[in-house]
Amino acid sequence: MTQRLYLYDTTLRDGQQTQGVQFSADEKAEIAQMLDALGVDYIEGGWPGANPTDSDFFASAPATRAMMTAFGMTKRAGRSAQNDDVLAAVLDAGTGAVCLVGKTHPFHVHEALGISLQDNLENIRASVAHVVAAGREAIFDAEHFFDGYADDADYALSCLHAALDAGARWVVLCDTNGGTLPGQVGQITQQVIAAGVPGDRLGIHCHDDTGNAVACTLAAIDARARQIQGTLNGLGERCGNASLTTLIPTLLLKQPYASAFTTGLQGLAGLTRISRRLDEILNRAPSRAAPYAGTSAFAHKAGLHASAIVKNPATYEHIDPSLVGNERVIPMSNQAGQSNLRARLAEAGIIVSRDDPALPRILDLVKTREDAGYAYDGAQASFELLALTELGRMQHFFDVERYRVTIERRKNALGKRISVSEAVVVVQIGGQRMLSVSESIGPEGDDLGPVNALWRALAKDLGPYQAAISDMHLTDFRVRITGAGVEATTRVNIESADHQGRRWSTVGVSPNIVDASFEALVEAIRWKLIRDGIGAA
Amino acid sequence: MTQRLYLYDTTLRDGQQTQGVQFSADEKAEIAQMLDALGVDYIEGGWPGANPTDSDFFASAPATRAMMTAFGMTKRAGRSAQNDDVLAAVLDAGTGAVCLVGKTHPFHVHEALGISLQDNLENIRASVAHVVAAGREAIFDAEHFFDGYADDADYALSCLHAALDAGARWVVLCDTNGGTLPGQVGQITQQVIAAGVPGDRLGIHCHDDTGNAVACTLAAIDARARQIQGTLNGLGERCGNASLTTLIPTLLLKQPYASAFTTGLQGLAGLTRISRRLDEILNRAPSRAAPYAGTSAFAHKAGLHASAIVKNPATYEHIDPSLVGNERVIPMSNQAGQSNLRARLAEAGIIVSRDDPALPRILDLVKTREDAGYAYDGAQASFELLALTELGRMQHFFDVERYRVTIERRKNALGKRISVSEAVVVVQIGGQRMLSVSESIGPEGDDLGPVNALWRALAKDLGPYQAAISDMHLTDFRVRITGAGVEATTRVNIESADHQGRRWSTVGVSPNIVDASFEALVEAIRWKLIRDGIGAA
Repeated sequence: MTQRLYLYDTTLRDGQQTQGVQFSADEKAEIAQMLDALGVDYIEGGWPGANPTDSDFFASAPATRAMMTAFGMTKRAGRSAQNDDVLAAVLDAGTGAVCLVGKTHPFHVHEALGISLQDNLENIRASVAHVVAAGREAIFDAEHFFDGYADDADYALSCLHAALDAGARWVVLCDTNGGTLPGQVGQITQQVIAAGVPGDRLGIHCHDDTGNAVACTLAAIDARARQIQGTLNGLGERCGNASLTTLIPTLLLKQPYASAFTTGLQGLAGLTRISRRLDEILNRAPSRAAPYAGTSAFAHKAGLHASAIVKNPATYEHIDPSLVGNERVIPMSNQAGQSNLRARLAEAGIIVSRDDPALPRILDLVKTREDAGYAYDGAQASFELLALTELGRMQHFFDVERYRVTIERRKNALGKRISVSEAVVVVQIGGQRMLSVSESIGPEGDDLGPVNALWRALAKDLGPYQAAISDMHLTDFRVRITGAGVEATTRVNIESADHQGRRWSTVGVSPNIVDASFEALVEAIRWKLIRDGIGAA
Repeated sequence: MTQRLYLYDTTLRDGQQTQGVQFSADEKAEIAQMLDALGVDYIEGGWPGANPTDSDFFASAPATRAMMTAFGMTKRAGRSAQNDDVLAAVLDAGTGAVCLVGKTHPFHVHEALGISLQDNLENIRASVAHVVAAGREAIFDAEHFFDGYADDADYALSCLHAALDAGARWVVLCDTNGGTLPGQVGQITQQVIAAGVPGDRLGIHCHDDTGNAVACTLAAIDARARQIQGTLNGLGERCGNASLTTLIPTLLLKQPYASAFTTGLQGLAGLTRISRRLDEILNRAPSRAAPYAGTSAFAHKAGLHASAIVKNPATYEHIDPSLVGNERVIPMSNQAGQSNLRARLAEAGIIVSRDDPALPRILDLVKTREDAGYAYDGAQASFELLALTELGRMQHFFDVERYRVTIERRKNALGKRISVSEAVVVVQIGGQRMLSVSESIGPEGDDLGPVNALWRALAKDLGPYQAAISDMHLTDFRVRITGAGVEATTRVNIESADHQGRRWSTVGVSPNIVDASFEALVEAIRWKLIRDGIGAA
């Protein structure tokens, strides 16, 4: 008989505790929509009232099928739940569910709160009852539960019962400090259920401080807990939370879980895409080694493995990578590579016959350039230009003879620091030389920098092509450093758009960030000229 | 009664299967020495004969207390062990131990080898016997053991017995494809021991394809396996191997392991340093979220956590970070309160009284600047400089009067495209003007770009401070565009290091990417001067 398992995502709350992560309200909204498409049951959006971003997010949170949940803490001692302004702000967010964290470990009740154990129990009871009375679903996060249980099992259990008796839908065992090992999590979860807490009202919340967040979560499920908390890509304080990106495919694809449970999940094919999109929002390179969604998760480098994989992928793969929207990576060109390539070109309107000798050359060139730092997955326009060139179908529009950019910072006559960027670009078009110069002054008189100056100089006078590029503008500019140190290589992605509603992405790579940007700018213009059907002058 | 647990490191062999990792023989020697200092029992150095680097490494391998081990595979069918040239090359390395991988799963015997099950058993027996006859310790890696056991337990067990009967010191259960979950690993390991394989001759080798490599290893130890295989920082094919950097502190610090076992380990204080040194060799930024050794492993960002940590670190830390040579980090972010702020300053040696009127000013300034695009939780050195300035404790080292950077791309006399970046920096130090100019030419004559040129010009002549910055270098450079389009604001993070082993992070923000970089560079130098106790000239 299958049972229902509930997934509770806290990327937007605990995930935001990751060092270096600060979501904007818009980014939170986008992530909430991705989570909803994935099919999690609860989306914990943040702590309303704790900071302006979280309040802004809840004020205009997207409509979701998943239960939107506001996070907060149990009321403080010495006031009623009704008069606790922190709790009031959480309820004011108007979410269907409210999750309140509270103490369950006597050490913390004394050390952090400085109140009696009895007062803490009353805080839990009154806070949960207040949430329930407001018509919301109440969830109680039992902070430091495993440490507390080891220290004083009776008290830790009494905290859970206080919340349940007050009407909490779920009580969640939190291994807040992340130091509990899977065996202990399993044992204690069993004992909690044996002590009268129903498994279908019991959740688990683990951290990865011993590298066991996923295993601890599975151990709690094995012990019959039925709500699991985690984050996309395992974001979270310190070493992170249990990764839902890892847990979800295990639960759907692996036994005994796949047969034992039903969930609200909508399938796995988008999993890798969601994982990568989150990295893009965070401007992080995708994790190579992440289970299931990592860029190397199905990369077969060992010679013995790679040759066996060609015979039968099951020899060295625990699952088919396409199940999670990921791809096999084998350091060799093969038939599958060529048919993928033809399909990708056909999507761009570039028809190539099956036996065209340019196909293996294009595959090799893509591989060589990706080794050098390029990434064509996020730069379809540059990929098309590369293919057209190898196919001998690329038009020759213009040559850049040279450019020069100067960035100067100094104090002006009033002693104020100013900076100025100036670009000179010399372009040859059909034997004619066009010399353009531009500064990069923004709307408020500030210097917008060398890439802006270069774009303005390039777009100022392209002679016969000027009309075609006049409706084109740059909509996004991303920089990634590959390698380490100031001597690392820079990859620049530029996204462009035109008035016909097209958007396209180009890439440039160089140790010199300005040069990489310039390459991507020039490719953006070339692609636009091709798509507009402009003939070379 | 304590039992002996053996640690077997395969960083130099399986770790080298990591996508993008290729050790030189010298790097292998350095890593072997680090492993020996850590106190592992076995160092698997590579596969002699499989590639020139591995052969070179064994030809001049460092003398180690640990047992140096050569890896190879069981002999092929149709020839004797004595006449197998692949096996001969492995023995020729002259190591004290030899580890041979062989098939134990009928599917692989048929699919990959194309031989009979009986021939495969004979290959295992004869190969192990040959190693033992040569006076070496023999280890048998049972490839795909868990999948094989699930498919045909009797055959998988017969492979182990063939190796043991031929004299293998260890047989190692390998979850080659990484898809087996901890519960199954524990059960099957128990069954293997029940079938007559002694636990003190049984090893475990796990991969992280479901995020459970560490937990699976612990499950096998719980079932009484006594050799564990893994790699530093969890390097390895696909998602990596079980991380010894994570397992070692768990085994030494956590129960039941700490009391149950003795090991050859020489303590934990150097663990973080070894982990970071490996990243340096690989030219990777250290993992933030890695358990124990990650740069964020003891970072407390949530305001409630940070304020409790100030009262008592045990409130939110599962171990004392100094036990593994790591450090507590209390980053700044707009979630932080005053207690977080004072704690962070105290960690940096900046003592501020509770009622100092600068505290709210610093908090306000952090918020204002984070709204403008700064992010201080990834830039603690810049945060300290900001606080010192507000506290009136900042020394005035130097002024930048002006700088100018020129980036030029053109064709040289041979028609080849070249680019050159040149920076001029004018600095005032105690009334004296220092004018420096630098180009940015990399080791291969390529242009490393404007930020590199600026760094070289700045570091070329800082007069009285020159000695202090001479042991400083830049180790990471990250760029994030906030907002959209080419007119967006740029945030640059720079990480620096010195020969005293310090690492520090600074931030600069500007619409002009070069100007943002320059700001972060100058802050990096100022922080270094303060930490070195250099007085302002």
